[in-house]
Amino acid sequence: MEESWATLGVDLHLDTVGVASRTGARAGDATHTGVRKGLTDALREAVRGGRLAPGTRLPSSRSLAADLGIARNTVADAYGDLVAEGWLTARQGSGTRVTDRAVSRPADPAPRHRAAGGPTYNLQPGTPDLASFPRAAWLKAARRAMAAAPNDALGYGDPRGRVELRTALADYLARARGVHTDPDRIVVCAGFAQGLSLLGGVLRGRGLREVAVESYGLDVHWNLLKRAGLRTRPLPFDELGTSTAELSGGPGSGPGSGSGSGSDVASGTPKVALLTPAHQFPMGVPLHPDRRAAAVDWARREGGLILEDDYDGEFRYDRQPVGALQGLDPDRVVYLGTASKSLAPGLRLGWMVLPAPIAAEVVEAKGGAEWACGALDQLTLAEFITSGAYDRHVRGARLRYRRRRDQLVAALATRAPDVRASGIAAGLHAVLELPPGTERSVIQAASWQRLAVQGLASFRHPAATDLPERDALVVGYGTPPDHAWAGALEALCGVLP
Amino acid sequence: MEESWATLGVDLHLDTVGVASRTGARAGDATHTGVRKGLTDALREAVRGGRLAPGTRLPSSRSLAADLGIARNTVADAYGDLVAEGWLTARQGSGTRVTDRAVSRPADPAPRHRAAGGPTYNLQPGTPDLASFPRAAWLKAARRAMAAAPNDALGYGDPRGRVELRTALADYLARARGVHTDPDRIVVCAGFAQGLSLLGGVLRGRGLREVAVESYGLDVHWNLLKRAGLRTRPLPFDELGTSTAELSGGPGSGPGSGSGSGSDVASGTPKVALLTPAHQFPMGVPLHPDRRAAAVDWARREGGLILEDDYDGEFRYDRQPVGALQGLDPDRVVYLGTASKSLAPGLRLGWMVLPAPIAAEVVEAKGGAEWACGALDQLTLAEFITSGAYDRHVRGARLRYRRRRDQLVAALATRAPDVRASGIAAGLHAVLELPPGTERSVIQAASWQRLAVQGLASFRHPAATDLPERDALVVGYGTPPDHAWAGALEALCGVLP
Repeated sequence: MEESWATLGVDLHLDTVGVASRTGARAGDATHTGVRKGLTDALREAVRGGRLAPGTRLPSSRSLAADLGIARNTVADAYGDLVAEGWLTARQGSGTRVTDRAVSRPADPAPRHRAAGGPTYNLQPGTPDLASFPRAAWLKAARRAMAAAPNDALGYGDPRGRVELRTALADYLARARGVHTDPDRIVVCAGFAQGLSLLGGVLRGRGLREVAVESYGLDVHWNLLKRAGLRTRPLPFDELGTSTAELSGGPGSGPGSGSGSGSDVASGTPKVALLTPAHQFPMGVPLHPDRRAAAVDWARREGGLILEDDYDGEFRYDRQPVGALQGLDPDRVVYLGTASKSLAPGLRLGWMVLPAPIAAEVVEAKGGAEWACGALDQLTLAEFITSGAYDRHVRGARLRYRRRRDQLVAALATRAPDVRASGIAAGLHAVLELPPGTERSVIQAASWQRLAVQGLASFRHPAATDLPERDALVVGYGTPPDHAWAGALEALCGVLP
Repeated sequence: MEESWATLGVDLHLDTVGVASRTGARAGDATHTGVRKGLTDALREAVRGGRLAPGTRLPSSRSLAADLGIARNTVADAYGDLVAEGWLTARQGSGTRVTDRAVSRPADPAPRHRAAGGPTYNLQPGTPDLASFPRAAWLKAARRAMAAAPNDALGYGDPRGRVELRTALADYLARARGVHTDPDRIVVCAGFAQGLSLLGGVLRGRGLREVAVESYGLDVHWNLLKRAGLRTRPLPFDELGTSTAELSGGPGSGPGSGSGSGSDVASGTPKVALLTPAHQFPMGVPLHPDRRAAAVDWARREGGLILEDDYDGEFRYDRQPVGALQGLDPDRVVYLGTASKSLAPGLRLGWMVLPAPIAAEVVEAKGGAEWACGALDQLTLAEFITSGAYDRHVRGARLRYRRRRDQLVAALATRAPDVRASGIAAGLHAVLELPPGTERSVIQAASWQRLAVQGLASFRHPAATDLPERDALVVGYGTPPDHAWAGALEALCGVLP
């Protein structure tokens, strides 16, 4: 026993010194505190590690204090700490013992996520060039925002988000996207995904069972709706894009729910469609004007609600951006925007513009869970927008992406003349049509070259069975940093037929 | 007609100039762009505002261009933009008309949240002194974090949160709270609330119906569990605090589920208890050592899971902090911590330390919804912790709050000697016992003085019917900024019996 205590003593000594210096302890009370903490930590580790077995009786505080050359009350305090935490038990007449309960160590180590040997070049769509994030301008805005922030901005906040950001967004969205709103109708959320989840939950709570979606889209979004308890039903897609005429044959008008039931967004079960009107993802076409009109007419006639995913509305190259569908009918369209493409997904900042009837429920759902976004990032984005830095950044990014788009088109014309690029008027990605039956082999060939690309098949809704077989790549030319762009383009041309 | 077009022209002129200068347009192409956008915006507003009624035929692009003194193709482009957006319709042979659909304006203005005439003094618990948020040190950490961040930190991230923060937390929690973990077991979340919601959803998904909670607590938390589909059952509370012996009579062992069913956290339906072991909220006592032991024994014996809400583990004044219960059995305890008390709720940053079996499901639930926290705040907090700024801030805050606690106790001793303060060894709040039957009248008197305080009644679980009638205030002495503290204390003493 003597020897093990001595060993323990050595450990304690080391730990004690370490703790005392780490905590910047000064003489007197602070030294006592540091030594006590060191002793407590060392004893706890000894129990946890099994060196002090369950049931072991510890030396009296007097004798351990003498062994270690420290004050007796320090030992007594350390014992007391560990009794309070449950590592030791003190019983009248039987001294202090290690608790009889077996000590538990975590069963399995958590699975380690190995850093996968990633691709050399990444042309997968969905992420902007992260290297061009305006770090200095963002920090400058953060500094200004912090200086201007009232103290209560740091408290539990309005679930709609900071009023500074909602005000900046209302102005920006009206100016840049033709959105009709005011700050009270805007709810800031942690990216598009949280917005869609909140909406899904609210709509499911109203009895909705199904959402019409586009035949081509993101399975992440379909899965978010599925988690909320909603089926997704794909709308037909043809050479003019998504066909909105079929909305009428859609949710709520099937067997069991009388057609023309007059359900309404204000109270009943709305029929709902999730669309990307400004820039179909991933096909890259804007929703045809007749079909925009048909969608709004449907929503008015049948009490429908359109969820407008305006993920990259800022990036148009050959014409003015198509304004938001929301402007046509702010009572029938929920507008969803995000900073994920214009700035960076890592900010986790998005925004919804909500019709009044549904706004209260969404705010309640968000507030009930207190899923707010960090106030400092919200204030920084507000400052970034109102100072004009956002417009400057978007203009610069638009020029860079447009240049890449032009380089992609030019490279294809000379290196792969049989491959037609579409959806190139806007956004951060293009669709490259491949000869029938070659999509998978091209992706495979790319992966051998350590080039990550995605095929069109992965964007096809599983229930969209009447889609024509189309082989294509969805190429995110916005994704690579500048230094890797030329190499990525070269690698791409190398694997195209 | 002539006159209305002229009026329109004036508007256009104004808007066009404004837009051109705002966007910093240069000569040539950019001017065309600016004028086109100005015209598009003005026409859209004219349609939206009803000045251009549905069905109105617009002048030919040639004649409007002549009227306005701008290029014809600018007008044609603007018409094209508005056709694409659905405001105008162009038909062969009938020119360009305002779409026949009635224009919709939002129905009801969203309810305005008026800035309520808030209290002069706020002693409600739950919020730290926001005025003492270390703004300069935080910005410094943000600058360093931004400089060090790899580009991929700005992309879609690991749903567990940034590895830099999880690594810093693993080290800090082991050192300061005796938590046994590694970075892979930690999941960063948007405050305690998101953590509890995620856990509630996962546990409900496993078939759990009920969670044991403390008789005194926060209805916000009970409601979060309710939203996840879980009932809450209060545990008895006596002079030693929450009684964990009654856990065995708890969820899963009632009628209809055989006792000793051996359900286990690894696979089956765990029995779950939500506790505040280090500092019962709001009563302010640590969980008694015997009851800590009983809780862990229960969890082992019956396959239970303890959710440990360690909301203010950093703030202890008269002794070492009680280490986390999680250290006793990392496989049976989920540790939940937060920056809301130690820094500010507005950061929306919390963390969970999860046993392996449940970690994967929580990560999946969080990742499936992409509810990540902003990467920049995570990186900043990581830098804040590893640089030692967090420890320094906590030490400073501990001294300030301790001084306030001492001032509160001293003021009570002289000004309200019949009021006993308890739960004062730790945290940011104290419980002031009142004479029977006076709680409501004291709160009422306080509100007349514009002093916000909260009574104990609001922290009582509705099903905790066997609690003794206790009249008390829960006073958040940490809440006011320094300049308001003396006044708040004075106002409090003025309303106490």
